[in-house]
Amino acid sequence: MVNETQYTCSASSSSRSDGGSSSSGSESSKDNSRCSTPVLDADRHERLREKMRRRQDAGDKWFSLEFFPPRTANAAVNLISRFDRMGAGGPLFIDVTWHPAGDPGSDKETSSMIIANTAVNYCGLETILHMTCCNQTKDDITGHLQKAKRLGLKNIMALRGDPAGEEWEEEVDGFNYAVDLVKHIRNEFDDYFDICVAGYPKGHPEAESYEADLRHLKEKVFAGADFIITQLFFRPETFLKFMKDCQAIGITCPIIPGIFPIQGYHSLRQLVKLSKLEVPQEIKDVIEPIKDNDAAIRNYGVELAVSMCRELLDSGMVHGLHFYTLNREVATTEVLKRLGIWKEDPRRPLPWAVSAHPKRRVEDVRPIFWASRPKSYIYRTQEWDDFPNGRWGNSSSPAFGELKDYYLFYLKSKSPREELLKMWGEELSGEESVFEVFTCYITGEPNRNGYKVTCMPWNDDPLATETNLLKDQLEKVNRRGILTINSQPNINGKPSTDPIVGWGPSGGYVFQKAYLEFFTSSEIVTALLKVLKKYELRVNYHIVNVKGQNITNAPDLQPNAVTWGIFPGREIIQPTVVDPVSFLSWKDEAFALWIEQWAKLYEEESPSRMIIQYIHDNYYLVNLVDNDFPLENCLWQVVEDTFELLN
Amino acid sequence: MVNETQYTCSASSSSRSDGGSSSSGSESSKDNSRCSTPVLDADRHERLREKMRRRQDAGDKWFSLEFFPPRTANAAVNLISRFDRMGAGGPLFIDVTWHPAGDPGSDKETSSMIIANTAVNYCGLETILHMTCCNQTKDDITGHLQKAKRLGLKNIMALRGDPAGEEWEEEVDGFNYAVDLVKHIRNEFDDYFDICVAGYPKGHPEAESYEADLRHLKEKVFAGADFIITQLFFRPETFLKFMKDCQAIGITCPIIPGIFPIQGYHSLRQLVKLSKLEVPQEIKDVIEPIKDNDAAIRNYGVELAVSMCRELLDSGMVHGLHFYTLNREVATTEVLKRLGIWKEDPRRPLPWAVSAHPKRRVEDVRPIFWASRPKSYIYRTQEWDDFPNGRWGNSSSPAFGELKDYYLFYLKSKSPREELLKMWGEELSGEESVFEVFTCYITGEPNRNGYKVTCMPWNDDPLATETNLLKDQLEKVNRRGILTINSQPNINGKPSTDPIVGWGPSGGYVFQKAYLEFFTSSEIVTALLKVLKKYELRVNYHIVNVKGQNITNAPDLQPNAVTWGIFPGREIIQPTVVDPVSFLSWKDEAFALWIEQWAKLYEEESPSRMIIQYIHDNYYLVNLVDNDFPLENCLWQVVEDTFELLN
Repeated sequence: MVNETQYTCSASSSSRSDGGSSSSGSESSKDNSRCSTPVLDADRHERLREKMRRRQDAGDKWFSLEFFPPRTANAAVNLISRFDRMGAGGPLFIDVTWHPAGDPGSDKETSSMIIANTAVNYCGLETILHMTCCNQTKDDITGHLQKAKRLGLKNIMALRGDPAGEEWEEEVDGFNYAVDLVKHIRNEFDDYFDICVAGYPKGHPEAESYEADLRHLKEKVFAGADFIITQLFFRPETFLKFMKDCQAIGITCPIIPGIFPIQGYHSLRQLVKLSKLEVPQEIKDVIEPIKDNDAAIRNYGVELAVSMCRELLDSGMVHGLHFYTLNREVATTEVLKRLGIWKEDPRRPLPWAVSAHPKRRVEDVRPIFWASRPKSYIYRTQEWDDFPNGRWGNSSSPAFGELKDYYLFYLKSKSPREELLKMWGEELSGEESVFEVFTCYITGEPNRNGYKVTCMPWNDDPLATETNLLKDQLEKVNRRGILTINSQPNINGKPSTDPIVGWGPSGGYVFQKAYLEFFTSSEIVTALLKVLKKYELRVNYHIVNVKGQNITNAPDLQPNAVTWGIFPGREIIQPTVVDPVSFLSWKDEAFALWIEQWAKLYEEESPSRMIIQYIHDNYYLVNLVDNDFPLENCLWQVVEDTFELLN
Repeated sequence: MVNETQYTCSASSSSRSDGGSSSSGSESSKDNSRCSTPVLDADRHERLREKMRRRQDAGDKWFSLEFFPPRTANAAVNLISRFDRMGAGGPLFIDVTWHPAGDPGSDKETSSMIIANTAVNYCGLETILHMTCCNQTKDDITGHLQKAKRLGLKNIMALRGDPAGEEWEEEVDGFNYAVDLVKHIRNEFDDYFDICVAGYPKGHPEAESYEADLRHLKEKVFAGADFIITQLFFRPETFLKFMKDCQAIGITCPIIPGIFPIQGYHSLRQLVKLSKLEVPQEIKDVIEPIKDNDAAIRNYGVELAVSMCRELLDSGMVHGLHFYTLNREVATTEVLKRLGIWKEDPRRPLPWAVSAHPKRRVEDVRPIFWASRPKSYIYRTQEWDDFPNGRWGNSSSPAFGELKDYYLFYLKSKSPREELLKMWGEELSGEESVFEVFTCYITGEPNRNGYKVTCMPWNDDPLATETNLLKDQLEKVNRRGILTINSQPNINGKPSTDPIVGWGPSGGYVFQKAYLEFFTSSEIVTALLKVLKKYELRVNYHIVNVKGQNITNAPDLQPNAVTWGIFPGREIIQPTVVDPVSFLSWKDEAFALWIEQWAKLYEEESPSRMIIQYIHDNYYLVNLVDNDFPLENCLWQVVEDTFELLN
């Protein structure tokens, strides 16, 4: 007979690693009702402190990255690209420092608040915003915190900050210490934020003593901090002693060592000055003789950091490492790779990058049009109150935010004007020279002036790996004036772990309908429409010009699912759709990019500008879906037939 | 250049037959928001009068069927089976007559109201409920109409009915004529109901004259009736003249001829008496000599009806035919088949039969468990207020209605006790004799007493065509005590028009995960669980006994989609799921059927009853899903391995 116990306590009988569960006649306890959205990634629903705990329990080592807000809008654009690149390595979180002198809570594109906002919402990174409290009123602080919450930030690093004047005096009832800020956050926002505080392995330079500083740290933790990140240090034993001392006085929360890979002589000197730390003699001895050789210092810095980190991790007391990047990429990435904790995970929970805003946690479907401009899509839908179970539908479409300012720093091209001119042509001689630019972008070959075209107004980055599968065909059609801006091949059930097209949990299968989107002249559209009659039951199309004239065979303006996945034990997931309604919003953006990014490179009334303006005014934006995903993609044949008809 | 006109008026440029549409910069006008539910079948959203118009515009000929409420509960069960069978031929609607003597508005299982309710809600048929008004108060009538509306009935045939006494007097302010009822419905319920009225091709027997009767008919139409069904007649010219006369006085709504296929001498005489019609001499001449030969009369009746219907249809004035079935099947079906308007459409909008209740229009997903007991599922979920966009999810599960009365007439077995005993065994000698019953049901072979097992407590009908694909394997496992009650094969992208497994619009592809559900002993469950460890990542299972002890490896109690379809220009549709939460409700029903339908056939304390009771108390209900739908179904291997382990 079956062992009765086994049945009544059935959760334990499941050996499944992703958390097999059971119930004994009880109803589901999920607060979420309709369950159209399978929970693809537990990460999306966990708080930072829970993620930390889970990684620690699982024995996973992790890292995090600290950045400071840049000074200029251009530097901000670069920093955001860096977020994207360094985010690929899998940091548990990043943090953005608070610069009291830089209007840190403002809406400026370089403020701490806005940089953190960009990291969490547009780059999908778990983010901690630093906040200092000294010389600020309660109202100021509360205002900053409310704004942070509104923007979707969930974690605060509570700091005292440096007093404004030389002589600092405690204010009665003011924020004198970080602990006051911790208490204030817990009073005003209850448990909403995860709170981090700073620890000083050598004691705070202003503290009466190391022991007194430890007691201050304990106060901060007991006031409600969730974990500690330490100031940098030069020797692993410094940290390990500190950690033991913390534990000895009853601090049990995670303590994360702050790692500073030495990257250059001057930055080290500056940091030492600011932190009032002393560089050990053995380090000085190495550095002084090579102080003018940046590469040598960086190599040494990497070496030193790797060996220190190894020692920390080997101690068994350290599970995560926090890196002071100084907004630089190379040294930190190198250290992480050598430690083996830089993990570029080719698996994606969904085919597009998920935003970390709590409101968007359940988002699980997007229109395909913004595939290469996800930040724009997020920006334009940021006011949507409702992503009901992640379903995105027609009802919400009217709420598409307008693109009022094409120079919004996360929407504009990352490349400077001169570079764009080199890529897209200092001078255009006709529509054909525009075809050439598109073709060079596809092929990766240099243009007639010897420059590679690495981005387009509609694509900030070189061609996606997946699109590379279509390269030959794309080249052919672009040469002839079918100016492609988005495409995907059809896929009939590849494993969800496929390195190129896979996404979602393992053990599943992913599917796609072939998609092609392009600008083209009205002559070609006329021929195309004749050809499409033959494909009426197979191909769905939307053809629209800048004035909104619109031809489609989509039944009832329903969305067409073009990417979907089937997974073990889950409902179907369909993260990408071609939606006729949102296409009209996308159309405005796609046409505007001709003018805002390309035409405006040229003088007004110049021939080059008039060529782009002509295309903007007269071309059509076309999208085609081949519904017959198990057969060979017919869209190339459609285009072929169109060219044939024209000949 | 492209013709500009073509672009601005783009709807006309679409040649798509299912209604290609377009928009010029406008937002979608659909009131429905989230659009998770593609509109699979325009029929589901149209009113009867719109369907009629659409069919007429398309040149489609159609038919409808009239039934009367049965006298006994058993007859009601049979009538409902007849609804299901005759519904397969594609009637545009059925109608149920109103029997004032039979408490027609009551909750009795034989009342007009409840029979119509069953037709619309459980059989998914567009249904007209007759209602007579004479000798009734306004409150009575309003009460009936409110109840009809509540039950999801949308169409009323407004009749006067026969006065109670011999001498009938008009009541002031009362309901004296059908027109009063039409007015009352429009006053009280605005445009909610479609209203049908009766027409008399020979004039109403009580009317002063044919012309006066036509004027009464016109009054009824002008008071708000949407269409007319006529009294029976014997010659096509009678109807055609009537129709022309109606048109001549300005009646423009559809007029549907009532067809009465003569089915027997006595029924004809009775009907003639009731309707005060005269049978033409040429018909009497044929019938009188064969009046004792039922078959001959029926053949003649079919012949006569076919030729009359042909003449009506050929006139070009008639688009639909209404049949007085007298609750019989053969003659009407024969006429319809010979006319070529009986259309068994193998295409299904969804893999399960859709309910015609307006509230359930958008329902598009159901748990697989009730696949063979859809009426029970509809009954148990009838109180659900919300099928939001047809999504059915965990939240609603707690609202599963209880199955309080297994003898609810549409839930109980259609077969009488004696027949069930012959099929399932007058006397059981042990669990093996139960295995035998299951095996005979699967194979279609007679049992040891020579009777075929054509139904089971969990399946009212013989094996589905689809399940036949699995017959050999099912036979093997049932013989050994894996008592299967539900299964489906895996399907990896068959055309949606596939005659066996297809559903939904054409041009699509349908998919399934293999599913197997069975009762089995705890010994087998013990072995099965060991085997399932090997299949942990591939097979999802739920194993539960009558006490609710439950083992599953379903992650987070999420539903697992087991049937889905991909269609041109639509979102993904996933109409069938294995849902862990609803499985626990189904479990109660599935176990109860052992007792209510099977055990109770036997005397209390009889060995046969004790055997069934033992199985009920000790067996487990198991469901298995093979998630790897593109590979060969592994569930048979799982069972095979289990038997091997036991040997």
